[in-house]
Amino acid sequence: MKAEIIAIGTEILLGEIIDTNSAHLAKQLPELGIDLYWKTVVGDNLGRITEIFQRAWERSDVIITTGGLGPTEDDLTREGICALLGETPRVDPDLESALRAWFGRRGAAAMPEQNVKQAWLIPSARPLLNPRGTAPGWWVEKDGHVIVSMPGVPPEMEYMWTNEVRPELERRSTAEVLVTRTIKTLGLGESTVDSMAKHLYGTPGIGVGTYARGDGVHLRIGAKAPTREEAWHRILPVEQELERIFGTAIWGKDEDTLEGHIRALFAEKRQTLASMESCTGGLLASTLTDVSGAADYFKGGLVTYWTDFKVESGVPAEIIEEFGVISAETAIAMATAARERLGTDFGIGITGVAGPDPQDGIPPGLVHIGVAGPGGETGTMSLNVNQGRAALKRRAVTTAMLLLRRTILAQP
Amino acid sequence: MKAEIIAIGTEILLGEIIDTNSAHLAKQLPELGIDLYWKTVVGDNLGRITEIFQRAWERSDVIITTGGLGPTEDDLTREGICALLGETPRVDPDLESALRAWFGRRGAAAMPEQNVKQAWLIPSARPLLNPRGTAPGWWVEKDGHVIVSMPGVPPEMEYMWTNEVRPELERRSTAEVLVTRTIKTLGLGESTVDSMAKHLYGTPGIGVGTYARGDGVHLRIGAKAPTREEAWHRILPVEQELERIFGTAIWGKDEDTLEGHIRALFAEKRQTLASMESCTGGLLASTLTDVSGAADYFKGGLVTYWTDFKVESGVPAEIIEEFGVISAETAIAMATAARERLGTDFGIGITGVAGPDPQDGIPPGLVHIGVAGPGGETGTMSLNVNQGRAALKRRAVTTAMLLLRRTILAQP
Repeated sequence: MKAEIIAIGTEILLGEIIDTNSAHLAKQLPELGIDLYWKTVVGDNLGRITEIFQRAWERSDVIITTGGLGPTEDDLTREGICALLGETPRVDPDLESALRAWFGRRGAAAMPEQNVKQAWLIPSARPLLNPRGTAPGWWVEKDGHVIVSMPGVPPEMEYMWTNEVRPELERRSTAEVLVTRTIKTLGLGESTVDSMAKHLYGTPGIGVGTYARGDGVHLRIGAKAPTREEAWHRILPVEQELERIFGTAIWGKDEDTLEGHIRALFAEKRQTLASMESCTGGLLASTLTDVSGAADYFKGGLVTYWTDFKVESGVPAEIIEEFGVISAETAIAMATAARERLGTDFGIGITGVAGPDPQDGIPPGLVHIGVAGPGGETGTMSLNVNQGRAALKRRAVTTAMLLLRRTILAQP
Repeated sequence: MKAEIIAIGTEILLGEIIDTNSAHLAKQLPELGIDLYWKTVVGDNLGRITEIFQRAWERSDVIITTGGLGPTEDDLTREGICALLGETPRVDPDLESALRAWFGRRGAAAMPEQNVKQAWLIPSARPLLNPRGTAPGWWVEKDGHVIVSMPGVPPEMEYMWTNEVRPELERRSTAEVLVTRTIKTLGLGESTVDSMAKHLYGTPGIGVGTYARGDGVHLRIGAKAPTREEAWHRILPVEQELERIFGTAIWGKDEDTLEGHIRALFAEKRQTLASMESCTGGLLASTLTDVSGAADYFKGGLVTYWTDFKVESGVPAEIIEEFGVISAETAIAMATAARERLGTDFGIGITGVAGPDPQDGIPPGLVHIGVAGPGGETGTMSLNVNQGRAALKRRAVTTAMLLLRRTILAQP
């Protein structure tokens, strides 16, 4: 089945809202054996909506739309489908009473009369339930084509997709399904990973590729097969071979996050952590606590933005004096002070120049990270990122997690 | 002029890379008097690229493409334009030597021979310089149509757009330009803002709209006019009227950020701040320091993730005992401890349940924020966000900045 996605709305067209729905859908279609060939964004204009619908009807089996199902005059998805199919909408009594009941439950005044168009149906359409909002979706079927229209609000769209649309499309798809396994590595460059995995690229019935990402280099194995089980059966030996080749450079798979991985490492060792950051301003602590259960190992952190506060928090003034505040020595002293102040097993320290101006003669972009452990062991890493404050903070936090991982795994 | 944007690349089509280029371009086209009607994403497939080019050629005056200019066989934008126009590429000697020189400067081995296609030109195309990468863009002009092809890597695209493409399009556009002014308010709901501004909606030659955003409700004034000056001339009286109506509820305009605004408020009062956070895990400190110059007022913060560490940092155990760790009283005690420990004018504290599990019988989503000032003044705000950890953290940080703003402005 050939599919295309059409996102409808002037705010999306003009870049005021970023369209996350299309990516959400696009990632899942291959798993259903559905080929996605086009994604289009069109504004709230009936002529142009109808034009793209006509074009999509010619070239695709399944048309998935998001947005344009609201109650206002600018919401024109239903009108576009009517124009495409030459059908006339009527108010469905069941949908209308459900809609009025929804407003009743909210304790709002009576339903605004303009909302009644959210109860429209056409002969070729059946409604898709939307327990998270007022706009039901449409499942339209005619002449071997399917149009699925869902609301643009992401939680509403996601609920409807997962519960109503995806299972139905899966039932109908007869093509081979694509199953993928992503293997996430850290500490190796993309070309190194590429050359280490290259001999697997030609494996029959399997696709293998490398992708440089913010959290390291990913290897993706993909297999198409008539059933999910068969696809997994093909993936497994390649996955095992990659595990053998990359060993501890692999830190996670599929949806795993680096902060989840660090949490799991500390949980396994029953050890605890404290942080002291300056140029990252708290982003390391915030990222580590983005995963639930972080409190099992992360006691807390200090954001020592001023040098004074570093010294007040236990960083020896002499070290700052001798090596400078932006130095590997200060980063280690921060890590040591963090673990001593908070009484944790490990401490991690980050110091650098966020920019845009140099600090103490050091140009923006340089970051030192230090770690200190329970056996007196220490380690450092440095990086240089000259792509602005946001990129520097993100990269420094990823590198800090890499250093934490190395240090913990190196323990006897 | 009618324009459309085409993003080219299978990774974008399949949602593995989020296309930020299109939004970047879409926001700027109205300022040039260019109407954007379509955005399309197409994968690395010559047939489908050529099809969308043909369609775009029929319906648009300006076609802007991003991506597909790399050196590999999957990079097919140039091939698509050749197919559309029936022209044959040849290697341009100047582009080729520039390309080889680029590789030479990088100290790499000789240029891989596949890269030579980045030196292609066709009779209708002139090159667009790309000092940030290897792929020059193409400016194609034929039969009254323009095709602009830029690389997909955002910094390369942005440089080329700003320096080469935008000025040229601006020269050619004869339509009225659109100028917009965004006015950002905080502390009022969207319907309140809407009803307070409603009488201005009908102002001739002006559009006014309200938009609920993460950092409050925005009012946007837009004016189309033959020149930028005339458009500003129409906007000004409406802007002044909105300033009169909304007064101190307005915190910024256009590209202003809340963290920049807080920095400016503290700088103006020459006062300092320290933070103590738990459920936000350092995201408040990180956000406050996302703006350069934050060190002028932000001395540092404590991420007191464990209750023990709150007490060690000066929060009285009796307050936690009496009111619970998730309480307005504890939030104020955290703010007070932060300002006393760090010796700053103001302190801010955040405590809440990030979830997914309840804490001390309190359901996830509840957050208390407290502030303490130099005159012994305190304030609190609470919020309840049940949309997951990321949303809770973001909303809590915004609310904390709103509370800081209120407290500082309330000073005698």
